[in-house]
Amino acid sequence: MKQWKVVITGYGSVGKQVARLLMLRQDHYRKQYGMEVILVGTARSTHGVYDEKGLQPSVLEAFAAEKKTGDMPFSGSDFIRSCQADVLIETGPSQFETGGPGLAYIRHALETGMHAIAVSKGALVVDYAGLSALAKQHGVSLKISGATAAALPTIDLLQYNLAGCEIQAVEGVFTGTTNFVLTSMMDEGISCEEAIARAQQLGIAEPDPSFDVDGWDTACKVTILANAAFGAQLTLSDIAKSSVREVTREQIQLWQQSGKTPKLIGSIRRTPEGLRASVELLAVDSAHPFANVKGTTKAIRVETDVMGDLLVIGGKSDPVAAAAAALKDLEHILSLQ
Amino acid sequence: MKQWKVVITGYGSVGKQVARLLMLRQDHYRKQYGMEVILVGTARSTHGVYDEKGLQPSVLEAFAAEKKTGDMPFSGSDFIRSCQADVLIETGPSQFETGGPGLAYIRHALETGMHAIAVSKGALVVDYAGLSALAKQHGVSLKISGATAAALPTIDLLQYNLAGCEIQAVEGVFTGTTNFVLTSMMDEGISCEEAIARAQQLGIAEPDPSFDVDGWDTACKVTILANAAFGAQLTLSDIAKSSVREVTREQIQLWQQSGKTPKLIGSIRRTPEGLRASVELLAVDSAHPFANVKGTTKAIRVETDVMGDLLVIGGKSDPVAAAAAALKDLEHILSLQ
Repeated sequence: MKQWKVVITGYGSVGKQVARLLMLRQDHYRKQYGMEVILVGTARSTHGVYDEKGLQPSVLEAFAAEKKTGDMPFSGSDFIRSCQADVLIETGPSQFETGGPGLAYIRHALETGMHAIAVSKGALVVDYAGLSALAKQHGVSLKISGATAAALPTIDLLQYNLAGCEIQAVEGVFTGTTNFVLTSMMDEGISCEEAIARAQQLGIAEPDPSFDVDGWDTACKVTILANAAFGAQLTLSDIAKSSVREVTREQIQLWQQSGKTPKLIGSIRRTPEGLRASVELLAVDSAHPFANVKGTTKAIRVETDVMGDLLVIGGKSDPVAAAAAALKDLEHILSLQ
Repeated sequence: MKQWKVVITGYGSVGKQVARLLMLRQDHYRKQYGMEVILVGTARSTHGVYDEKGLQPSVLEAFAAEKKTGDMPFSGSDFIRSCQADVLIETGPSQFETGGPGLAYIRHALETGMHAIAVSKGALVVDYAGLSALAKQHGVSLKISGATAAALPTIDLLQYNLAGCEIQAVEGVFTGTTNFVLTSMMDEGISCEEAIARAQQLGIAEPDPSFDVDGWDTACKVTILANAAFGAQLTLSDIAKSSVREVTREQIQLWQQSGKTPKLIGSIRRTPEGLRASVELLAVDSAHPFANVKGTTKAIRVETDVMGDLLVIGGKSDPVAAAAAALKDLEHILSLQ
C-alpha cells in the first residue's frame, strides 16, 4: 500500500487534535483511498520530533508535555525538509502582520513539492496569491478550510458547491467568540467586558481577546475569502473594521426596544465599482437570517446568479472541529492521488 | 486546446437550460480548465440532433420546436454511442419504478467510458449501486447533484464538505412543491386541493402533482442519499412515506393553535439497529430550524460526530438552478482531467 507522510507544525490545541484524529482515521484512509497515512513529524517553535515509521502516541504525548526553551537553535524549515513528507499541516499561531513562521513553513513545503494545509490564517492573509501561485507552479495543493471558519463550510461553498455560478455577495458571522459576546450582552444584559470575561472563563475567548473582539479574526477570514474565491488582491488594511467593544449597554437596550440584534458581519460584495469587503457591526431585524444565529454559532449567506441564495449555519467552533476541517482538506488531496 | 464533448439526453426544461448555460460558460471552461467544452448532441425520446463541431443555438432552437412523433425507430443508446462524447448529462423524466430510458443511457455511457451526470432520479433510485460500481470499473465519474435537491447542496455536503466526519443523521425539506403547498395552507387557510391548484397555476407543481405531494420525490432523494452517502442498499419501497394530501384544514388549525408548523421531512439516521430512513409529515415547533423554511425553499440539516451540526437553507428550485447543479458536477469532473 502506498504510504503518505504528514508533518504538523505548531503543536498546540489544534495540532494535537489533528494528530489524534489522523490516527483514529488511518483505517478509513486505507479503505477509502488505499493509502497508509502516517504522521512522521511535528514541530513547535523550539524543537520537533520525527519518526519515519510514524510517531507513536506515547512519543507525541511526551513531546506535548515537554517544556523546552528555545536555547538550541531550531529551524522549522530545516525540520520540514528533513521529514520528507507529502503534506504539511500548519497549525501555529496566526501572525497576521508578517505571516510569522507559518508563512515560511508553507512556502518551504510548497517549494519542495509538498501539499500544504493551513489552519492558521497569518500566512494566507499576508500572501495568499503568492502561495497559491507557488502551489500551482509545483503542481501541489494549498488547502485552507481550517483557516476560513473551519467546520462551517465557506471556501468549499464558494469554490466547490457553487462551482460555475457567479457569486454576487457573501456575508457571514465568521467569529464564534464575537458572536458569543454579543449574544451574552443581548440575552443577559451584561456589559461587553463582562461578556468577554465570561467567554474567557469558558475557554471560548483567548487571554488576549483583541484578535476576535476587535474584528481582526473576521477581517482575516474576509481577506482570505476575497482573495481565494474572488481572485481579489486585498490586504488586511483594505478592510474597514468594527470592534464589538464599541457596543454599550445603552445601545443594546435601544436595539432590544426596536427588535434588532447586533451581529459582527463580514461581507464581500461585487459592485459596479469593484469588490467591496468590510467587517461591520450591524443591528439586523428579526427577519434577518442571522438574527437567530446565537452564541458561538457561525453562519454564512451567499447570493448567486443562477442558484439563488444559500444560508449555512453551524459547525462546531472548537479545536477538534478545526482539526477535522484540516483533515477534510487532507482527504480532498488524497482523493486526487 | 483539448476538446471535451457533451451529450444531453432529455431535452425538456432542464435539458434546454443545461445547453444554454453550457454555451454561456464556454469561455470560463477555457480559462479555468483549459478545455474547449462543446455540446455535440442532444436527444429526446423520438429523435436526436448531432454535430461533431458543436451544435449551434439555431439548430438547438429548431430541435426544441420540432414536433416529431415516434414513427421512426430511435435508439437513444445508439445515438449516445454515435456521439462519441466525454460526458452524458441525463435530464429525462424520472421513472422511479423501472429507471426508464435514463437508466439504459447512463449504463451505456459508463460502459463505454463516458462520465455521467444524472439530473433525473429514476436510474439512481433503481440502481445507484450498480451504476456506481460500473463507473468505478471504467474509471469514470457518476455525479448526482442535479438529482439530489440540485441547487441545495446535499450529496456534496455529505461527501465533500464533511469528508472524514461520521454523519449521524440527515433530515431535510427536500421538495419545494410540497413545502409550497404546506406553507400556503398554513399562511392562507386554504385547502390542500386549493394549494395544489395554486402551485400548478404558478408552474411550481406538475399537471400530475402526485410525484411531489405524495412524497415520492422526497422518498427518491432519501433513497439516493442513503445509498450514495451512507453505502446503504435501500429501495424506494423500504422508505415509509407520508403524503401532504393527508392534511386537512382542521388539522392545520390545530397546529396553528399550538404554534406548530407542518413539514414533509425526509430523514436518514444511524441507529443501533442500522440505518433508518423515512419520509414523514411532522409538525415542528417554532424553534425547529425548518419552521421558517417557507414556500418552495428547501433545507437540509446534518448531525456529525466532530464538526457539530450544519443547517443549509436555500438554493433556487427551477430548471435553471437544476441545470447549474448539473454543470457544477461537470466542473468537478473537468477539474480532475
